[in-house]
Amino acid sequence: MRRARYLPMLDWAAAYDRNTLVSDLIAALIVTIMLVPQSLAYALLAGLPAQVGLYASILPLIAYALFGTSRTLSVGPVAVISLMTAVAAGGVAAPGSAEYVAAALILALLSGLILVLMGLLKLGFLANLLSHPVIAGFITASGILIAVSQLRHILGVPSHGETLPTMLASLWPNLPEVRPVTLTIGVAATAFLFWVRGGLKPLLIRAGLARRPAELIAKAGPVLAVIASTALVAGFGLEVATVGAIPTGLPPMAAPLFDPALWSALLVPALLIAIIGFVESVSVAQTLAARRRQRIDPDQELIGLGTANIAASFSGGYPVTGGFARSVVNFDAGAETPAAGAFTAIGILIAVLLLTPLLFHLPIAVLAATIIVAVLGLIDFGLFAELWRYAKSDFAAMAGTVAATLFLGVETGVLVGVGVSLALYLWRASRPHAAIVGLVPGTEHFRNVLRHRVITAPNMVTLRIDESLTFINARWLEDRLLALVAERPELDHVVLMCSAVNEIDASALESLEAINHRLGDAGVKLHMSEVKGPVMDRLKRSSLLDALSGQVFLSQYDAFRQLATDPVGGEAKTIAIAD
Amino acid sequence: MRRARYLPMLDWAAAYDRNTLVSDLIAALIVTIMLVPQSLAYALLAGLPAQVGLYASILPLIAYALFGTSRTLSVGPVAVISLMTAVAAGGVAAPGSAEYVAAALILALLSGLILVLMGLLKLGFLANLLSHPVIAGFITASGILIAVSQLRHILGVPSHGETLPTMLASLWPNLPEVRPVTLTIGVAATAFLFWVRGGLKPLLIRAGLARRPAELIAKAGPVLAVIASTALVAGFGLEVATVGAIPTGLPPMAAPLFDPALWSALLVPALLIAIIGFVESVSVAQTLAARRRQRIDPDQELIGLGTANIAASFSGGYPVTGGFARSVVNFDAGAETPAAGAFTAIGILIAVLLLTPLLFHLPIAVLAATIIVAVLGLIDFGLFAELWRYAKSDFAAMAGTVAATLFLGVETGVLVGVGVSLALYLWRASRPHAAIVGLVPGTEHFRNVLRHRVITAPNMVTLRIDESLTFINARWLEDRLLALVAERPELDHVVLMCSAVNEIDASALESLEAINHRLGDAGVKLHMSEVKGPVMDRLKRSSLLDALSGQVFLSQYDAFRQLATDPVGGEAKTIAIAD
Repeated sequence: MRRARYLPMLDWAAAYDRNTLVSDLIAALIVTIMLVPQSLAYALLAGLPAQVGLYASILPLIAYALFGTSRTLSVGPVAVISLMTAVAAGGVAAPGSAEYVAAALILALLSGLILVLMGLLKLGFLANLLSHPVIAGFITASGILIAVSQLRHILGVPSHGETLPTMLASLWPNLPEVRPVTLTIGVAATAFLFWVRGGLKPLLIRAGLARRPAELIAKAGPVLAVIASTALVAGFGLEVATVGAIPTGLPPMAAPLFDPALWSALLVPALLIAIIGFVESVSVAQTLAARRRQRIDPDQELIGLGTANIAASFSGGYPVTGGFARSVVNFDAGAETPAAGAFTAIGILIAVLLLTPLLFHLPIAVLAATIIVAVLGLIDFGLFAELWRYAKSDFAAMAGTVAATLFLGVETGVLVGVGVSLALYLWRASRPHAAIVGLVPGTEHFRNVLRHRVITAPNMVTLRIDESLTFINARWLEDRLLALVAERPELDHVVLMCSAVNEIDASALESLEAINHRLGDAGVKLHMSEVKGPVMDRLKRSSLLDALSGQVFLSQYDAFRQLATDPVGGEAKTIAIAD
Repeated sequence: MRRARYLPMLDWAAAYDRNTLVSDLIAALIVTIMLVPQSLAYALLAGLPAQVGLYASILPLIAYALFGTSRTLSVGPVAVISLMTAVAAGGVAAPGSAEYVAAALILALLSGLILVLMGLLKLGFLANLLSHPVIAGFITASGILIAVSQLRHILGVPSHGETLPTMLASLWPNLPEVRPVTLTIGVAATAFLFWVRGGLKPLLIRAGLARRPAELIAKAGPVLAVIASTALVAGFGLEVATVGAIPTGLPPMAAPLFDPALWSALLVPALLIAIIGFVESVSVAQTLAARRRQRIDPDQELIGLGTANIAASFSGGYPVTGGFARSVVNFDAGAETPAAGAFTAIGILIAVLLLTPLLFHLPIAVLAATIIVAVLGLIDFGLFAELWRYAKSDFAAMAGTVAATLFLGVETGVLVGVGVSLALYLWRASRPHAAIVGLVPGTEHFRNVLRHRVITAPNMVTLRIDESLTFINARWLEDRLLALVAERPELDHVVLMCSAVNEIDASALESLEAINHRLGDAGVKLHMSEVKGPVMDRLKRSSLLDALSGQVFLSQYDAFRQLATDPVGGEAKTIAIAD
């Protein structure tokens, strides 16, 4: 299976048979129908010509089918990444210009290269820097920004801006210009789509359909809205903004513009797009894989998504990733292998070659309505209340991310969220869990003196460290032990109980040497107990064990028996050390 | 003692008596003698007029005596901070210009404000980001840069540059211009100072002196070199670069220049100066405090060092911090309270008012020699070998920091070091220690199946997590558990043994909910055992416990007894899971 590490296709292609083919074809058909209006809408959200959304749904799907590890993930344009593309490309070029389209291609290329590089270096763990409250906060705030940004298409008036206040401020003065026809179509489409989402499925089930087909038809709601509104506009010649002429033909195959200044200006946005896209996609892929007891490999997923983005950049697309709603439809429709994705790509290609003239009269207000209904599902205010109850620090991370995203923009929002999460994490990591322990009477066990009735001795103190000792907490260890000794003049021995210490890095080793030396100056011996095998092996390669004023005891009980004089207690004791 | 939190003076001033006064006065006298040539030399290293070094040794010492917590730390100019000042000020102004001096004052003010702010916000833990290998690597590389930068004064030729290659490249073409008299004095002074450092103390002891006075006289070596060389140059009228006229009189009292563009350009350098200065100073202060079983408070130290720097910025100085060699002399000379520092300030003030004319003929080559001999003691190549043996990741952090500092400059060096340390830390933190455990026969204990002969059951698996569950390792937990289930089709139960889990943050909670849901889809129940009290209290405020497909067991033994069917083993087993 070694070859399959970089070409996961080898895992499933050999066992491919007629049944699998039929399942994959049916799923591909359903996803294609769903994907056509979605890719048009998200290209619109990204500020790009409608056909770019279709182009981004062809080659990238083939690339992911070859290199991705999820069997059911549906790759293509998604809402949040489209918003981030609009912000990044809008930072270097005017929407509608050729440079803007070029910037979107460069973003796809750069984020693709970043993802592949991270995959080859096995840096998938970097996605961990985005904690759940940060992601949820970012997605919620992005959903709000996206919905507000689409109001202009529903109202039929211009507006711009990248933060909530600037968007609203630029929309406000244009409100008197609202176009009634556009507004009517937009509001009707929005209301219809909301009803489809909630009410159509029960109706179909009552009408005798089984649960799964009922669900799939309900998901096709946007297609119904697209067909009905297009027919309406074409039939009655209504004056609304429509998609207009979409070039028919194969996607343009060309390398993205090489412009060093533009590339370096887009590098950080591309990095953020890569990471947000990866985090979103992996969680969708994991959810679906687990339902069938399959696995995905996050490092290979980086390569799969990376090649998909590189493919997008060479075929007139823009940044893509795995989308939630579409992948669930793919899964529910019975997709069994990534071939379903490749068949979807063929479906979209057929649409590009044959169907685009039919989309001429599709009203943009309807596409905006599909976006609004889709992203309102991303907004999760309930989580605020949950986090407030569960942990204030997580609440702070989410609130900070939401506020920064809404008021400072999406890129600042992600960075603030990561910064807040990391700072909180490092702050906690710098204060590890530890307890002064004593002997539980009648046993050889040692427990926290603050929580149990235990035996201690005035001439010794034992500190049990519950985490690995590294540079993050090395200074804390020094402070803590020196404080202990400063507060207890009667001490002769300090024992570090290392039963939970899995690692001692060079900084902590240096601190232990310093502590040993300083305690020695103060006439106190430093001992260690219950040091794990691998930790001990490493310590033997250092000079600490030679310099140690005390001993290393195999068990804490040995240490206590040998060092304690006049043990006292066995009752709950309070000792003046904050724990 | 609450008041003493922000004014530690109140801790010692009440008990001040005649004996303490005499001890402090003697120490202050000795430190003053040592500090005069040192402050001149370090001002030279910083590219500033000689008197700036003296000014930086007056008010800052008084400020630290009021607000610092170490009783024996000697604050003032130090080598590494002087180098960093030269680099930062050199980035915005030409050495020798009035703007350059103004930039040094702004650096002192900004780093002082940063330190005070960090102290008030109790952000001392941020200093943990500098791991021991990074600090050691930075100090070693800085020592090399400083020594090389001083070669020009020994050789009597101009050179410049901020990295090792640029320094050497600018020195090389000037070598034919070397001035023999300067070179002779410089080499003689260097040789003398090396001999003093190693050979004078044993000689004095053999001559009948006690150990401590012998040590103190040996530390006064630079003063002897200064007096002898000044007399030589003045007596024979030698043509060498000398300190020249130093203005006599009180330090100039003025606020630093307010120039927003300059301030924002110097903000990052000031931050680096603040953090490096703090880390250096705190480790010196801790070493000395521990010898007398005293304590220092790192957060209050931030305030002490911060006010010292602010004082420097208002009295014509430049950034200061606690110096190692000088503090040891202060300690050995018997300083008992921070009043010794205040008396030293008075000593330097007297020197500024009376002694500066005597320094007119002091050769700069001799000051350069004192710097070279001092900083060569900072260089620690032996640590490379130790780290290579002890831990490759720590070696990589040190090597990266040394290379970045030497070849990219001091500021990049610190940033690269912190980046490398943090990345390595987060990488390890994202892969926490965990073990699949089984029952030790005849006991109620559970141990790692890979290391012990234990009993397991085919229908259940128990994973003991040895660290807190947070966003850093939440994704790992999902991957690990889903992999377990994917690889063992016969599983009915997964138990998470949480005996070492001190915290579950919102991201890990979300992961547990997802895992529970996904395992449920796969027909496997998720259980937890030995959840600690505070963790359980929090979980009760979440929806996990309601949704959990399995149970929460008080003890792992209960879980095993209730869930295991057909337990097998009791012999060493190998199970196909990498650990």
